[in-house]
This record gives sequence, C-alpha cells and structure tokens, in this order.
Amino acid sequence: MGLGQIVAQSQGHFNPPGVAPAREYSLSKHFVHPFRKVQPKPIPVDDTMSPTTRAVIEADHPPVLTLDTINRHVRDAQYAVRGELAIRAEKYRERLAAGEKLPFDEITLCNIGNPQQLGQKPITFFRQVSALVDCPSLLAVADSQGPDGEALRLLFPADVIARAQKLAKAVGSTGSYSHSQGVPCVRQNVARFISERDGGVPANPDDIFLTSGASDGVRMLLNCIISGPEVGVLIPIPQYPLYSAALTLMHGRPVPYGLNETAGWSMSVADLTASVRAARENGTDVRALVVINPGNPTGQCLSEENIREIIEFARNERLIIMADEVYQTNVYYPEDRPFHSFKKVLRSMGPSFDNVELVSFHSTSKGVLGECGRRGGYFELCGFSPAVRDQLYKLASISLCPSVHGQIMVDLMVNPPKEGDTSFPLYQEETSAIFNSLKQRAEQLTSVFVELEGVTCERADGAMYTFPRIRLPAKAIAAAEEAGQAPDLFYCLALLDSTGIERFARFTGLLRDFHQKFMEQYRDE
Amino acid sequence: MGLGQIVAQSQGHFNPPGVAPAREYSLSKHFVHPFRKVQPKPIPVDDTMSPTTRAVIEADHPPVLTLDTINRHVRDAQYAVRGELAIRAEKYRERLAAGEKLPFDEITLCNIGNPQQLGQKPITFFRQVSALVDCPSLLAVADSQGPDGEALRLLFPADVIARAQKLAKAVGSTGSYSHSQGVPCVRQNVARFISERDGGVPANPDDIFLTSGASDGVRMLLNCIISGPEVGVLIPIPQYPLYSAALTLMHGRPVPYGLNETAGWSMSVADLTASVRAARENGTDVRALVVINPGNPTGQCLSEENIREIIEFARNERLIIMADEVYQTNVYYPEDRPFHSFKKVLRSMGPSFDNVELVSFHSTSKGVLGECGRRGGYFELCGFSPAVRDQLYKLASISLCPSVHGQIMVDLMVNPPKEGDTSFPLYQEETSAIFNSLKQRAEQLTSVFVELEGVTCERADGAMYTFPRIRLPAKAIAAAEEAGQAPDLFYCLALLDSTGIERFARFTGLLRDFHQKFMEQYRDE
Repeated sequence: MGLGQIVAQSQGHFNPPGVAPAREYSLSKHFVHPFRKVQPKPIPVDDTMSPTTRAVIEADHPPVLTLDTINRHVRDAQYAVRGELAIRAEKYRERLAAGEKLPFDEITLCNIGNPQQLGQKPITFFRQVSALVDCPSLLAVADSQGPDGEALRLLFPADVIARAQKLAKAVGSTGSYSHSQGVPCVRQNVARFISERDGGVPANPDDIFLTSGASDGVRMLLNCIISGPEVGVLIPIPQYPLYSAALTLMHGRPVPYGLNETAGWSMSVADLTASVRAARENGTDVRALVVINPGNPTGQCLSEENIREIIEFARNERLIIMADEVYQTNVYYPEDRPFHSFKKVLRSMGPSFDNVELVSFHSTSKGVLGECGRRGGYFELCGFSPAVRDQLYKLASISLCPSVHGQIMVDLMVNPPKEGDTSFPLYQEETSAIFNSLKQRAEQLTSVFVELEGVTCERADGAMYTFPRIRLPAKAIAAAEEAGQAPDLFYCLALLDSTGIERFARFTGLLRDFHQKFMEQYRDE
Repeated sequence: MGLGQIVAQSQGHFNPPGVAPAREYSLSKHFVHPFRKVQPKPIPVDDTMSPTTRAVIEADHPPVLTLDTINRHVRDAQYAVRGELAIRAEKYRERLAAGEKLPFDEITLCNIGNPQQLGQKPITFFRQVSALVDCPSLLAVADSQGPDGEALRLLFPADVIARAQKLAKAVGSTGSYSHSQGVPCVRQNVARFISERDGGVPANPDDIFLTSGASDGVRMLLNCIISGPEVGVLIPIPQYPLYSAALTLMHGRPVPYGLNETAGWSMSVADLTASVRAARENGTDVRALVVINPGNPTGQCLSEENIREIIEFARNERLIIMADEVYQTNVYYPEDRPFHSFKKVLRSMGPSFDNVELVSFHSTSKGVLGECGRRGGYFELCGFSPAVRDQLYKLASISLCPSVHGQIMVDLMVNPPKEGDTSFPLYQEETSAIFNSLKQRAEQLTSVFVELEGVTCERADGAMYTFPRIRLPAKAIAAAEEAGQAPDLFYCLALLDSTGIERFARFTGLLRDFHQKFMEQYRDE
C-alpha cells in the first residue's frame, strides 16, 4: 500500500470496549525509515480517542509501529473467545450499568469457562488457607493465648490454620519468586496426586512444571516444538482457540483433524492418519498431536480403547502427545464414561511405549474450583529427554516463576480436606453442590437444544460445554451474507441482541423463545 | 551430526538443581522422520535420572524432541540470572539442608532482586487487604455484630476492612478471569497515580495494561515489534538479561549500546547514534530503544537533561522508547539525583514530540514492596496508534488475564494508606525502615568495593544493585581459561565456594577477606 494512502482497518474483532474501530495510516515499511520524510494526509479525530491517540493522529509523523510494521503473526492471530460477540456483550453490560433500558436487564458472558463470574462460590477451605498464608500478621498469632489468637481461632478452623502454617513453612513468603519450576513441595504433592489418580503409576516431581494456568504451559511446549514455519501440530476441530492462536503467533502450522460428532465426538485413527499423511505430503513436519479430554468445547470423555488407539497412532507416526486434561474432574457419567488419563493408559501399554513423549496439562481454573483468576496450573512430562526438560526449565526461568498464589491453589487442589478433618463436611457439601449444578445444567442444556427446530446436540459427558449443531434456513444464511457475517456469528449476535443471554434459570426459556422467533422469521417457505 | 552419533551436551547452565548434565542423542532432523528406523547406540543410565528419563534412554527410539529438533531460538537463549552460579548455589543450599558441613552455614542468593527471600518483611496493610479480598467468608462477617464480626474487627483495622470491601466490589471474585487488560477500576487508579507522579500530565486507563510482572509486558511489546529476523532493538550494556533472552527467543537482533561508567553510567547520544547507524548499515532495522532507569544492574538515575537528549535521539532516529522504570521508587539521593519519568519529560517537550512512541513498565516486585511472587505489573502506552493497542489487547486476551492477586497488589501500590488512615503510621514505619535499609546497604556495599584491591565502583543512585569493576591479575585470567570459565564467573564461583555469600551483616567482611586472599593467590609478581 502506497505513500500516505489511508485505508480503513476494521479492528472490530479486537477493540477494547468503548474504543471505536481505528482509522490507521498504512505505509509500507520503508516510509517509516528514519532517513525519509513523511507527509501523510490528516485523519479525522474521533471523540472516543484518548489524548495520546489524538496526539499520534494530529502529529506530522506516522508511528513507528503500525499494522504494516507490526509482527504479522501477531496481526494474523485470531482469538474468537474475546471476539466481536464478546466485545458487543461487554458494551451492552456497560450500557446497562449506565442505566440504559435494553430488552434485557443483565448480561451473562458464556464466551469462556469463568464460573465464578457467573456466581459460582469459591470453596471456603481453599480461600481460608490461601488468605492465611498470605497474611503473616494473622499467622503470627495462630498460637497466641491472647484475644487476637482467640479471634483467629474463632474465624478459622483448626485444620485451616495447620495447613496454612505447613504451606507457609514450605513456600516461604508469597512475595518471593519461587523456584522457576514451582515450589518443590508443591510439585511433590502434585506427583503424589497423579500417582494416586493413576492407580500407583509413579510420577516424579522433577518432571512437573507449575505454570500460570494451563495455557502458559501449552505455549512453553509449542515454543519448543515449533522450530520453523514448516512444523505442524494436529489440533481437533472443533477446538479451544488457544491452540490455533498460539500456533499462528509462533509461526507454526495448525493441522486440523475432525472429531466424530455422530460417535460422541470420538477420535478416528483413520481420520488422524489421513490428516497427518496429507500434511506431510504437503511438506509439513508434523511433530505433535493435541488431544483435549474431556473435550473443550465438545464435552466428550474418550474411552480407554480410543485413547489406546490414539497412543499407538502417535507412536507409529512419531508424534508428541499434548493432552489437555484440565476438565479431568468435570466428568458427569463416571460409570459409563469415566476419565482415563493418557499417562495411565500409556504406562499400561508396556515398555515398548515408554519412549512416547506425552505432556499432560492441568489447571485450577476448571473442575469444581473454578479458580481462574489465580492462574494456577501444571504440566507433567513423560518420556521427554532430560536435555529438553532443561530447556523448558530455562524458558520457565526467563519468566522467573508462576504466581505463588496459583501454586498454592494447585497444592490445595491436589490435597483437599480428607474425611475426619474439621473442614471436610463443608468442603464436601460445597463441592458436591457445584458438581451437581454443573451436571444438571449440562443435562438441561442438551435437553433444551435437542427439542429446538433444526438443532442436534450430543450429550456432554464432561467439561463445561455442549456443542449443538444448528441447521439455519437458507434465508438466514442469505441475511448473514447480507450483513457480512458468518451465519453462526449472525445467529449468536441476534441471540445476544434479543436476550442478553441471561442467568441459567431463565436462559433456557429465553433461548427457546428466541430460537422459535428466529426460525419463523427465516424459515424457508 | 550423523546417524546415531552420541555427543555430550553440557546443559550445566540450565540444569534444574540435582539433575546431572544430560548425555543426549544428537540426530539430524530427518532421522526422527516417522518413516525411518533408527538404531542409536545405548547410553549409560545415570542414577540421578527419573524413571521417565531412564525410559527414554533405555528405549529403542530417540525422542521426537531433541536438542537438534527443538526450536533453536529456545536453545540459543541465555539467561545467566539462573545460570551456573545460581545452580551451584542452589545445590550448596540443598547440601546444607541435608546437614552437610561446608565452609559456610547459609547461602544467600544475590542473583536477582528477590528481597522477601532475603528476609524483607511484606507491608502489613497490603497483605491484610489482599487476604480479606481473597476470603469471602471473612468479608461476609465484616459488619456482623456477633462474635465473628468482633473477632474480624479485632484482627483487621477499620481502613483495611473498608478498602477490602471496596476492592472486592470492584474486582468481583479473585477466582474470576478479569478483563484481559486488567480490572477497569485498577487501571483508573494506576492512571491517577501516574498523573499525580508526573505533576498532572494526563494518563488514560485505556492506555494502561496490567501484566504478570513487568517482564510479561516487555515480552508483549517485543512480540509486536520483532516482525522479522532483521529487526533490532537497542539494549544497554550492562543489562538485565531479560532483554537479550527475549530478543533471542523472538528471533530479533540485540543492538548493544554502552553505558558511560565513568560518567555515572549515563547514556551518551553519540554512542547511541554510532550503535544505531552501524546496525542499520549492517541491514538491521532498528525499531526500539530499551532504557532501564533507575539502572539494573548499574543503579544510576538518569538526569532530566540526559532523558531529554535520549528522547530527541529516539524521535530523530524513529525509535520506540521502552522505558523500564520498575525501580522508580528505589531512589536514594532524591535531592541531587531524583527520578524523572520518561513520560513527564516527553510531555514537557511540546507538541512536536507528541508522536514519539513511549511505553513505560512498572512492577510490584521492586520498590519497598518487593512483592515478586504475585507477578503484578503494568505498562502505559504513549503515542501508540489505536490499532496497535488493539493488537496488544488481543495478545493479552490470548493469555486470558494477569493474576488477579497481582492486579490487587498493583492497586495497593498506587493507592497506599494516607496520612490520617488508621494503618498509616505502621505503613510509614515499615516502608521507611525498608527504604533506609536498602539505601544503607547500597552505600555500605559501594564503600566496601572501592576499598578493595583492583576494584572500582560507582555510587548506586537507586535500584537494588551496585556494579563494581574488578581488574583481575593475568594469573587469575589464565587460571580461569584453564578451568574453561569466563574470568568473572571464575571469580564469582570462587567467592561462592569459600563464603556462600552470607547475610549482609557478615557479607561485607567475608567479601573483604575472600578478595584479599584471592588477589594474594593470583597477584602478578
């Protein structure tokens, strides 16, 4: 694009709330070279622009960093979770907050699993311990016989105080950088948790990295795996967009494979093989396979047989397995669809599979905790070479350490109150209430979807999502094209505009009414 | 390197504690191709290796991910802060913990500013508010007239409770993902803080991004700026190694410029100009200038005149200014060496400088807080285009949000107790004690260094470091070469081996004794 040419760059997908789409100089790189003079044409100043923004636009030089000069992998990355729909929802929220009258009086964001934002209560024991560890002035009086000690013991159960003292001793100050790989004793507890979960399969704390949420760990692994633009990674469709976004940012190639909707979103080795062979024939060096189990956003739990097939496939095709297992405790039909960890299945397959490279990701953000804001998580390496582990340790060190609060929540997640502890009854009551509510909503949502005209929906075995298929009438698709929108976005924006997607109790009714009106409006004669 | 050839890859620099340097297959990429068979020679198994590691080495296939196939930018990144010296120190620490007798009975890690690990106490008000916001079961009884309410009000001052209630209302649950750019009201408080710091220069919350420590923000900006391998960024020498490591990881070019040691580590525009012109003549597209003020590790505070020259230089050379100002409150001689923010100086230079792109980084990890473990920080954009800001918002969204505890600590940092608040006297007492101790140690350390044979050391105006120059005898340099070590590493390892670098009270004496012995041993006849 030429000198001084002004083009409208719609940034709607990624505008922060309240910021109008930007009009932006588009100058090819050499025009921002220091030794050239540039006299771009003026641009109309927009009232929503901040003083500094206005300064740029009124100034007589374009900025050094523009959509032309920015890293194109950043520019090209898409992240729909915070896309147009979420932006519009946030704007509605602000308008409601400002007292404006809308067809609804509340907005519920369903763009990401963020349970506590939707009113899910945190688990008391976890928060009590976390607060105590964070506050030395409280811990200091834990054993005092004076009124402050009595006050503390009135507010905190004995097992909370004991756990907080133990953690404070192990962690030191929550204000210190920890070991880059995570506090050693927390990694030991994670290893014990994994080993117990997997029926005694050993786990080594040296192979565990605490991370800032699971996504941080995913990025660390992809950063090592993507050694050049020819390297590809198999990702499921439908997927959680972190994977496509991270691959674009790192200049790697997403190699999509389809999930088998009519077979409960299972994975077909035939399809996987076809995808990897086709990609390799096109010169893609396919190095890894991403599996999300339980599925996000598809909600399936893979069967043990299916997992065994997938591991064999990965071994035969020489692929690293990246197992996203953050929903491992959101499993609603354990009797016929239990969760099987990839590690347990892998280690049950005998020594000839010992060299399969598996990394498993977990998080404090899901489960019944829903502690997203602390950015707690970990990954476990199985079968990776020590030299590669050292490289991951170096990467972790460059970020210094994950949030110590996140690490503490990981410790609590893998080591909750036990039968007999003072806090156990409340813990059990809170966790089962959350679990049952999640399961009930998954069931209700599916049952509502399957009743709707043109909609099919698989049962969610786990996770926090259902993934209905909605067959839109030709007229709706035409209207979407008219509006320059993808048909699914068109439907969702209409749903948001007319209902605000309100709290679950009213959600299903509103969805039913909206969908009926929408289909009537667009149904093919 | 050929088929099955085994080479020793010393990973000493980045081994996690207790892990022996790995011996590692080195196979060129096509030998890990899925359709080839590989029969590498066996490798001796090491007792320090974990079961999974042994599995890899005993297995009949090399792993997919090796030092040959890993992203070479990851492999090439150096991060001395967690390098050989830190690794050896951590090992000594473990041996002392295991009860082993060594020439010292304690290790103090000085490899990074981590004050609370060295015994600095957190500020009571900040921790009390943080704990209360984190614990709904406590906040719930804040206004209760029952015994629990009384107990809470006995343990927490009234202004702590009031602030916690205010923050809880603004933040919502600490367990929710926040707005990707950070909680809006926290960004408003940061904007107010900046504006007050800079004598009324306006700051806009839309231009502020809360981050997971300052380094997270630095990586976000570099990720946008480094659009290809020809792009370079000016970094100071000596520097904080985050910059060189991040540039290597992102495949950008570090363009070093020297700091002027004999002129108090100031920046010379002549040197800067020489560096940028030379780099451009070699085909480097220099896009940005990193300035660390107060200096890390050099401790200088740049004068207002020097900052003005630097801004003019950046404008004339069309460079983005990345101002690392995380030590802005660690300033020990405010009367003759006050801190001047780049933003304030820039905005004082008139409209013809409005289009200079400046990003300023701040953190909760330094100052008198030293709250490293919460990973709190922010950056402010000045003069960037709205479209580029939208790209940064998208990048922030892919990481979901920074730790909410970090965001809360940022809010407390920019909005501490004020004269008249119940908590103010204790806050003032704690913060001035920490400040005075930091200043006193900076002075003592300099005065000790300047007395040592062959050592010169500039006064530290601020930050947490002094940067002595040690002229080693030829014999010492020869001995270092013999040992295959850089002379400075050789000296530091010897210092660690003989003293353990103990607590500050004894540190200076031990250093003096060690240095004298070392020089006697190696002094040129």
